Amino acid sequence: MRLSRYFMPILKENPKEAEIVSHRLMLRAGMIRQQSQGIYSWLPLGKRVLDKVNNIIREEQNRAGAIELSMPTLQSAELWQESGRYDAYGKEMLRITDRQDRPMLYGPTNEEMVTDIFRSYVKSYKSLPLNLYHIQLKFRDEIRPRFGTMRSREFMMKDAYSFDLTREGAEHSYNKMFTAYLRTFDRLGLRAIPMRADTGPIGGNLSHEFIILADTGESEVFCHKDFVNFDIPAEGTDFDSVEGLKAVFDKWTSLYAATSEMHDEAAFNAVPEGDRLSARGIEVGHIFYFGTKYSEPMGAKVQGPDGKEHTVHMGSYGIGPTRLVPAIIEASHDENGIIWPASVAPFDAVVINMKAGDAACDAACEKIYAALSNAGKDVLYDDTDDRAGTKFATADLIGVPLQIIAGPRAVASGEVEVKDRKTGARETMTIDAAINKLLG
Amino acid sequence: MRLSRYFMPILKENPKEAEIVSHRLMLRAGMIRQQSQGIYSWLPLGKRVLDKVNNIIREEQNRAGAIELSMPTLQSAELWQESGRYDAYGKEMLRITDRQDRPMLYGPTNEEMVTDIFRSYVKSYKSLPLNLYHIQLKFRDEIRPRFGTMRSREFMMKDAYSFDLTREGAEHSYNKMFTAYLRTFDRLGLRAIPMRADTGPIGGNLSHEFIILADTGESEVFCHKDFVNFDIPAEGTDFDSVEGLKAVFDKWTSLYAATSEMHDEAAFNAVPEGDRLSARGIEVGHIFYFGTKYSEPMGAKVQGPDGKEHTVHMGSYGIGPTRLVPAIIEASHDENGIIWPASVAPFDAVVINMKAGDAACDAACEKIYAALSNAGKDVLYDDTDDRAGTKFATADLIGVPLQIIAGPRAVASGEVEVKDRKTGARETMTIDAAINKLLG
Repeated sequence: MRLSRYFMPILKENPKEAEIVSHRLMLRAGMIRQQSQGIYSWLPLGKRVLDKVNNIIREEQNRAGAIELSMPTLQSAELWQESGRYDAYGKEMLRITDRQDRPMLYGPTNEEMVTDIFRSYVKSYKSLPLNLYHIQLKFRDEIRPRFGTMRSREFMMKDAYSFDLTREGAEHSYNKMFTAYLRTFDRLGLRAIPMRADTGPIGGNLSHEFIILADTGESEVFCHKDFVNFDIPAEGTDFDSVEGLKAVFDKWTSLYAATSEMHDEAAFNAVPEGDRLSARGIEVGHIFYFGTKYSEPMGAKVQGPDGKEHTVHMGSYGIGPTRLVPAIIEASHDENGIIWPASVAPFDAVVINMKAGDAACDAACEKIYAALSNAGKDVLYDDTDDRAGTKFATADLIGVPLQIIAGPRAVASGEVEVKDRKTGARETMTIDAAINKLLG
Repeated sequence: MRLSRYFMPILKENPKEAEIVSHRLMLRAGMIRQQSQGIYSWLPLGKRVLDKVNNIIREEQNRAGAIELSMPTLQSAELWQESGRYDAYGKEMLRITDRQDRPMLYGPTNEEMVTDIFRSYVKSYKSLPLNLYHIQLKFRDEIRPRFGTMRSREFMMKDAYSFDLTREGAEHSYNKMFTAYLRTFDRLGLRAIPMRADTGPIGGNLSHEFIILADTGESEVFCHKDFVNFDIPAEGTDFDSVEGLKAVFDKWTSLYAATSEMHDEAAFNAVPEGDRLSARGIEVGHIFYFGTKYSEPMGAKVQGPDGKEHTVHMGSYGIGPTRLVPAIIEASHDENGIIWPASVAPFDAVVINMKAGDAACDAACEKIYAALSNAGKDVLYDDTDDRAGTKFATADLIGVPLQIIAGPRAVASGEVEVKDRKTGARETMTIDAAINKLLG
């Protein structure tokens, strides 16, 4: 992408409304724009990151055997009356009346709808286990949306729903998502720690929040420090192995870990003092096993191997991609801007032409840009006539992992400078070496 | 994907509510499910097709220089009061009041919001031309939603918006989208003919509908039959060439083509009788140039090279992916089901195990399934213990281009049968030959 043809509106001033660093940096880098209170557009740079986050989530959901569909944003009130949540949900549910005066709502979550889909089609235990997910917009009319897309009203959620014949089956389904979440957050460059959680309005009796550690996190968390170095389940994990996944679950729940709501001072004090970690965290995922809470009132039953009808056991599993993007920034930035993990960086590299219009600089940059683009790399080419200082500041701000800097002097000897955004290390090398470094 | 683990709820009966063939086939193949009147879930098979359609649209938008972002579904009423459309839009606009009693709406289109984004950031002609698009859900509260996702209330739209300094620039932007649309529909396996159109509630003075020919189309269209064989602009088309794109536009508007609303009997009769084509069609895209209709009231101006402020010239360009999927089916099906063009087929092939549980059949199928999957092909493996007749009927219904049939007799001699869904041609070949046919 040539910057001269791109739409990346960088703000020079620090936006007054931004209270936290991720919100400030997302506004300054032109990633998002508020359209109404708690409702955001994702501008092109932000959209690129969001897409990469969603793709990683999707790959790991699919690997764990979940199946993607897409449920609509608007739901009929009737469905929620069946589960009893229509009256219970309160003012966070955006209630809507259509032109036929039918009561509708903008879905804050999809337990009811997916249970309705399930009961319409699935009649036999032979179709189980089943896990259906979608990545869809939700709306929760928070009284005080804040922190940019960290806590917005219209937001994106990956929500998966599992259906099993028995509680034991449901626990295996739970462990599949537990394992998939560990892998997902790791691939996003985050260290997430599962913590036992309150089940809140979703209900149920087994639930974990996944909390990432970030100095600027919204909540206080307490855990054993060994979690920071636990191994992540491998790509080849066998998701059909009941014992294998149980071992992952057992290991990751073997040590103390709790948010402030669930904190047990005495239990924490039983952890050897040198192993206690008390830190700030951000919730980035939440999983629930809630048994027959929805399947019972909504009549989601299958015929079992015994020929009798059984109410299915369910769980739900959420990740908020529009919240994850700022969470990644909270966990990875410096005073100059964002530092993207390579897996979600909007571009793999930025080519900075220090003297656009100079034949040698243009030729060097075009060569690098073409070679990398043709090899399938996402490259931003800063071909503008901005000042060098502006170009460097922008490249640092948007946090692309590698910067390839082509100035007239280096180019005259066939060289460019390659800067690592994270470490700040700069290295001069030939143009071909720079290309190979990125393709290597 | 193993069918035994997939969620593809096939309906045996013809659904009563479906009036048109695409709606019937999408329900029968388990692609969609109605959740409320005119509001659909896209079940896994449907979601796969929709994703492929969106990816082709996206590739061609990007090729033409449009830049993707994502605007939210909910908009504030204020924006629409600025343009004057809030009162004018009528009951199709779903009006919503949030908990703070602010008037909101579920966006039926995004001219106002994108103009607001533009005016917030773009100040100079040097940033032009600019074309911003998103693929996002929209809501139009139609009084009579019908024909499944062909005319639903919640639907997906790719809407692009161009901004130019001058009318001439805007015409080039228009021609870019005109050309991109010809390529897009062609890649989707459709023959689309641009027809001059009424501008309706979007307004403006230059507009074309893209109509595909389908016997079961909703509208009557009249055109010169040469359109059916016109060449499509090549992948290497230079979108920066004003003359080149003007030539594409001129060629594709040189002959008579009109929907019934714009039909001019006398002009049509001037076409030699043997060249007249009177047919049924489905509108799948609509593009507009509307000058300063929104930029003027909303104050979207840039500084020109003359140092003065200029109100920008705009156009908007829509394609409805959730409408395109049924439109493709209307154009491509037979009495047994859907016949997908390869570019949007939910799977590249289906491997049919005629005797699941038989060691030789299982081994042959697993070998083929693994070889194709590892090569990046999307393969459905029918590993169920359904009867052969059911498996064949399902494979035909879902319309996957190639079927690889592994029965005990053929497998005993190391062979399988490969059936072309479209032609019905069957060919017996070795297992390796079948694999190579798909990878070739």
